[in-house]
Amino acid sequence: MPSPPHNGDGDAHPPQRRRRHLSLLLLLLRLVTFGFSLAAAISTATNSSPSWLRFQSFRFVFAANVIVAAYSLFEMCAAVHEILKGATLFPEPMQLCFDFAHDQVFAYIVVAAGAAGAADARRLRAGGACAAESGSCVLADVAVALGFAGFAFLALASLVSGFRLACYLTTGSGLHIW
Amino acid sequence: MPSPPHNGDGDAHPPQRRRRHLSLLLLLLRLVTFGFSLAAAISTATNSSPSWLRFQSFRFVFAANVIVAAYSLFEMCAAVHEILKGATLFPEPMQLCFDFAHDQVFAYIVVAAGAAGAADARRLRAGGACAAESGSCVLADVAVALGFAGFAFLALASLVSGFRLACYLTTGSGLHIW
Repeated sequence: MPSPPHNGDGDAHPPQRRRRHLSLLLLLLRLVTFGFSLAAAISTATNSSPSWLRFQSFRFVFAANVIVAAYSLFEMCAAVHEILKGATLFPEPMQLCFDFAHDQVFAYIVVAAGAAGAADARRLRAGGACAAESGSCVLADVAVALGFAGFAFLALASLVSGFRLACYLTTGSGLHIW
Repeated sequence: MPSPPHNGDGDAHPPQRRRRHLSLLLLLLRLVTFGFSLAAAISTATNSSPSWLRFQSFRFVFAANVIVAAYSLFEMCAAVHEILKGATLFPEPMQLCFDFAHDQVFAYIVVAAGAAGAADARRLRAGGACAAESGSCVLADVAVALGFAGFAFLALASLVSGFRLACYLTTGSGLHIW
C-alpha cells in the first residue's frame, strides 16, 4: 500500500501497517458514532406531543448530535479517502490536529448535552409530566441514551486520533513543536 | 537532574529536560484545577436557603468537583515527588496510564455535571425561584462557572498527560502494545 514519506525514525514497527490499522479502526468508530448520533438527533426531533424541542436542553441534545453526525460523516469520507489513496485529505499535520481537536471538543459538547438532557428528562418524570405522555418520555430517555452511546464511541475515536497525532509529533517528521 | 532509564531512542531532544518541563506544566495545571474545583464544591455545599444540595444536579456538581479536587491534590503530590526524586510514584507505565485515564474520565464527568447544574440553575431562574433568593441563584451560577473553569484546566492536563503517555508508548521502552 502506498504511504506518504512520513515514517517513524526510531520505530521498529512498519508504519504503513500501523497507519492502515489505525485508519480502519477510526473509520469503524466514526461509523458507529454516526449511527448513534443520527439516531439520537432523529429521536429528539421527532419526539412530539408537543415537541420536546421546546426544552432548551433537548435543543442542545439535538444540535450536539446533528453536529457530531455531520462531523462523523465528513471524517468517514476523509478516512475512506486516506485508506484508498494512502494520503490524508488535508496536509497530514493539519489533518491530525483537526481530527483530534474536533474529536475532543465534540466529545465534551455531546456529553454535556446528554447530561443536560438527562437532567431535564428526569425532572419532567419526577414532576408527573410523563403520566399523560409516557411514550414521549421513553423516547426522550432513548434519545439521551443514544447520545451517550455516540459520545462513548466519539471518546474512543478521540483516543485513537490523539494517539495518531502524538505518534506524528514524537516519531514523525515535518512538525517539531519542541 | 536524575532520570529513570527510559528515554526516546529515535529522539533528538533531551528527554530529561522534556520530562521536567512536562511535569512542571502538569503540576501547574493541577494546582489551578484543584483551586477551581475546590471553590466550586465549597460554593455548592454552602449555598443554602434552603440547601441547593436538595437538587440532584447540584449534588452531582458537588460530588464531581470534590472528586476532581481530591484527585488533583493526589496528582500534585505525585508530580512534586516526580520532580524532586526524578522518578514517578508508581512504575512509569502504570503512572502514565493512571494519569491519562483519570484525567479523561474526570474531565467528562465534571463537564457533564456542569451542564446538568447549568440546566437546573437556568430552569430555576426561569421559574421565578430566584426572585426571593437572588443571592443564592448567583452563587449557584458561580459554582457552575467555577466547575467549568476547573474542567477547562483538567482538559488541558489530560492533553498533556495523554501526550506523555503517547511519548512513552511510541518512543519509550518497556511497554510495547503493538
